[in-house]
Amino acid sequence: MEKGALLYEGKAKRVYTTEVPDLLVIAYKDDATAFNGQKKGSVSGKGIINNQMSNRLMEYLEQNGIPTHFVEEQSERETLVKKVSIVPLEVIVRNIAAGSFSQRYGVEEGLIFAEPTIEFSYKNDALHDPLMNEYHIISLGIATREEIDTIKCYAFAINDSLKTFWAGCGITLVDFKLEFGRLSDGSIVLADEISPDTSRLWDTATGKKMDKDRFRRDLGGIELAYAEVMKRLNAHL
Amino acid sequence: MEKGALLYEGKAKRVYTTEVPDLLVIAYKDDATAFNGQKKGSVSGKGIINNQMSNRLMEYLEQNGIPTHFVEEQSERETLVKKVSIVPLEVIVRNIAAGSFSQRYGVEEGLIFAEPTIEFSYKNDALHDPLMNEYHIISLGIATREEIDTIKCYAFAINDSLKTFWAGCGITLVDFKLEFGRLSDGSIVLADEISPDTSRLWDTATGKKMDKDRFRRDLGGIELAYAEVMKRLNAHL
Repeated sequence: MEKGALLYEGKAKRVYTTEVPDLLVIAYKDDATAFNGQKKGSVSGKGIINNQMSNRLMEYLEQNGIPTHFVEEQSERETLVKKVSIVPLEVIVRNIAAGSFSQRYGVEEGLIFAEPTIEFSYKNDALHDPLMNEYHIISLGIATREEIDTIKCYAFAINDSLKTFWAGCGITLVDFKLEFGRLSDGSIVLADEISPDTSRLWDTATGKKMDKDRFRRDLGGIELAYAEVMKRLNAHL
Repeated sequence: MEKGALLYEGKAKRVYTTEVPDLLVIAYKDDATAFNGQKKGSVSGKGIINNQMSNRLMEYLEQNGIPTHFVEEQSERETLVKKVSIVPLEVIVRNIAAGSFSQRYGVEEGLIFAEPTIEFSYKNDALHDPLMNEYHIISLGIATREEIDTIKCYAFAINDSLKTFWAGCGITLVDFKLEFGRLSDGSIVLADEISPDTSRLWDTATGKKMDKDRFRRDLGGIELAYAEVMKRLNAHL
């Protein structure tokens, strides 16, 4: 389907209208940002990998009963998706302590939780995406009790599916960020992307980081790491 | 009961052992701090008011079915309490948006919530008391699911009781911070204090702040405001 007008440009993606009101095209860029946009760079070929990986994972999740915005891959960087109204929450599921969690609570990276945790951040750059609990979400009218319950149910089910999937690739799923949206009928679907930009993925054998932390922490080898994750994913499918 | 050794000195209180292992004496100071100890000062007579006010409110809450650490007022600044192991959480109940909530989420002070909200902060000065949700609390072993449910149940019941109490004094209960502790048998009781240091109290008729925000925000008249709250409380009892 042909792209129409540019609707929105984010840090790593552009979103275009199409001739069908309820469908949009997402185009993935190679731009990389971290720390609320303070660090900027580019990772050659990242847009291609993230587009294709996110699509394969959303297809896999659909097969496992999770509704997503995914419709069809249009090209190596572009995907047709259902139009949603994004719920302005970053939904983060963690299996192992790392990153902002470790910093915030003074916990060593690598602590394995007995049960996965979930947390919500309010998507608001000016406020630096503050952590927000379920009472706050409801009191500020960001989502209803029923929507939060649906999102949590989907997020934990996605974690179960993805942990199993990545384990089959020799990769440990440490944590990941999801975004959800409302379709025109109000139903909740998984939106945004699932990729090494939005997940922490550690090589199970060596513990090596295979995700955006290579960019955040200047570890080098980011293109190779993303390509290795994609290679293992394709081999496992 | 005679005070023994100084066990702990906090920002606004000292805690002493007694001859009975399960009982302690709390002594209230006039010291005032704000912004995680960055702002320091003294409010003449505050320790006397906070001691007596907290004791009257804990007696009132005990009559309303809430277990507390309160045993007996020993003097104008000192109170005998049950020894507890503090659950390292600040439990904040909010009826109206103000303070850190308004700053964190970009919401005007004064927004009245349809339902009260509750939030937990990890009591850790070095980490600046970070917000923490129930999954985090359980995953880090800070409290059990059952303890969190008990604390929430007590906190909302305390809010209902205190809202009614303060309304009878012509005062609007905006928000307040509680701390809970475990007795030697593991049961949860309300601990710490309830005072204008730990509550936002607005004069219902005029909206005037009658609490520690007068110190935080350099509004002046803090001694008069605390004394006025105490006068209304005594008149209402």
